Amino acid sequence: MNKTKQKFKKKIKDKKPFFLLTIGNTETGKIEGISAAGKNPKMTDYTPVADAEYLYYGKCKCIEGVPISPTGIPTPAILSKACTDLIKPNYLSIKTGLNIETSAPMVNIDSKPGNDIRKEIAVQNPKNIYENSKVVGESLSKNKDDRYYLLGESIAGGTTTALGVLRALGYNAMVSSSLEENPVDLKREVIKKGMEKSNISIGSLKGKPFKAIKTMGDPIIPTIAGLAVGLDSFIVLSGGTQMAAVAAVLKELNELDNTIIGTTKWIMNDNSNNIEELASKIDINLLNSNISFKNTEYKGLKAYEKGVVKEGVGAGGLMLSAEQKVGREKVTNKIEKTYKKTST
Amino acid sequence: MNKTKQKFKKKIKDKKPFFLLTIGNTETGKIEGISAAGKNPKMTDYTPVADAEYLYYGKCKCIEGVPISPTGIPTPAILSKACTDLIKPNYLSIKTGLNIETSAPMVNIDSKPGNDIRKEIAVQNPKNIYENSKVVGESLSKNKDDRYYLLGESIAGGTTTALGVLRALGYNAMVSSSLEENPVDLKREVIKKGMEKSNISIGSLKGKPFKAIKTMGDPIIPTIAGLAVGLDSFIVLSGGTQMAAVAAVLKELNELDNTIIGTTKWIMNDNSNNIEELASKIDINLLNSNISFKNTEYKGLKAYEKGVVKEGVGAGGLMLSAEQKVGREKVTNKIEKTYKKTST
Repeated sequence: MNKTKQKFKKKIKDKKPFFLLTIGNTETGKIEGISAAGKNPKMTDYTPVADAEYLYYGKCKCIEGVPISPTGIPTPAILSKACTDLIKPNYLSIKTGLNIETSAPMVNIDSKPGNDIRKEIAVQNPKNIYENSKVVGESLSKNKDDRYYLLGESIAGGTTTALGVLRALGYNAMVSSSLEENPVDLKREVIKKGMEKSNISIGSLKGKPFKAIKTMGDPIIPTIAGLAVGLDSFIVLSGGTQMAAVAAVLKELNELDNTIIGTTKWIMNDNSNNIEELASKIDINLLNSNISFKNTEYKGLKAYEKGVVKEGVGAGGLMLSAEQKVGREKVTNKIEKTYKKTST
Repeated sequence: MNKTKQKFKKKIKDKKPFFLLTIGNTETGKIEGISAAGKNPKMTDYTPVADAEYLYYGKCKCIEGVPISPTGIPTPAILSKACTDLIKPNYLSIKTGLNIETSAPMVNIDSKPGNDIRKEIAVQNPKNIYENSKVVGESLSKNKDDRYYLLGESIAGGTTTALGVLRALGYNAMVSSSLEENPVDLKREVIKKGMEKSNISIGSLKGKPFKAIKTMGDPIIPTIAGLAVGLDSFIVLSGGTQMAAVAAVLKELNELDNTIIGTTKWIMNDNSNNIEELASKIDINLLNSNISFKNTEYKGLKAYEKGVVKEGVGAGGLMLSAEQKVGREKVTNKIEKTYKKTST
């Protein structure tokens, strides 16, 4: 175990976990071929709600079964659920700009679904979203010091909006994808059009994080940033390159203290993203879980090794925490059991 | 300090407080002359939302100023806010059946506002409301044992619906009122009509708590009951006779363990209610704060001594906790300061 991981283990040793899953929608996620977070573009609206419901109830309510990718690979919520069953974090879902109604109990952040970033305005009032989310963070952690917070996301199209925000803030970013083949050309094209329409260029919004979100982002970025600042505790941004965008926003706000990114091995192994370089430039610690499905008999999990899905629903941070607590083998077994139970 | 209070003090000593404020509306609260939770019947819809907003932001958003009674006496949220500033509980508001939209962040329980209990059905699907609230409780307290939970309410008309539920369950109940002169005849008349319409009588729903809520209750009763069961921790039902109704429901469900009622001195001094007898019959410990405004120079607080408002927004339980932590004098001073700040 390397030094950073040892520090992490020590840090969470006497703290109890609280998992906050932020879910939202953006029209950007419906651009054909851009996201694997749903069987088809229309279904991507349902994926975040279905993920949150699955974590509350152990099953989805707004759809049959669980969210799957176009090739049938199931949501990383399965990995997350296995871990929440192991480490038993408090759990609450935060909804911020959804197209779909749900009867599942969630904290509502007053926010509209995100627009296609090729339009002028991607997110209306990101500062308000941030401020309201900060209030939630503050309210949940008034008497803190014995909790750490895992902040996860579920939003289709989120890596593309993350790319937009990172580029607008001046990072030479390459983001990952839930698809096995990262549609980098499509993303580049979408970003290019978005920047043109908003009359911005790479780095032109440095120092203006809310304008970067407004023109190129999605509603979950200001929500997770606000939660992190309000919670004012040890924060594990649980995700891949989307969390790099959140971290970049936090850095602009001078609020990056006591925050790390926790992601998966599959994000680290993906050469189409540069998360290590990004983390280093942002100056945030990046840790990854070592959970692997190399030896699993389950096709839907094995696909993760080929780079399908890779991350989401807080899976990275949750697996990282669970590994420290119960060891890699138990986590893998629990995920397999959860997968088996869910797919039958 | 009596024995029960000593036990309470010991019990919360090493625990951190979490305050959950459940808010809702019922048409029952709009019956002319039945509630002081608003300047006039129409305004009673706004009071619960305004109370919750005040606790998040220190000011209301949906109305100017703070909620007041018909005679201009301000909401007990002022007492509650002073206490939350002192004991710094985590705070979250739960909305369950509102007529008013709010941009303040709250957990939504899928529920419609309550009907006038003189109609056949007062609350649709109370069992669903209970089950969803239980999920929230479970999710918030997965890794418990170091927290205790103060459960408060804000709903206009809540003592009348509480009376209905208590009577339907067979309790010879007399409930308090936010008005100086408890409109007992009006309440009796409303209950009588409600029971006739629903074809029930005193005690006829013993063993059927959800039917009692469905015919005579309001949406906050199954919500707070569900939260209490899901949290499965030390629970302070923070309120007056409304919390006796919640306790009666919990007793029917065999879920009354580790739960007390925490109320105000003004509820205890009110001869129009029989909360002590109720608590004894339900077999739940009843504690009260000793905060008094006898010597205050502030008219709006002094009115509490005459029996106006008396309780609400968790004030009883919060003052009780704050007293144990910092002493009566500091609590009174803080309330006076908060009152002064709010009314200028």
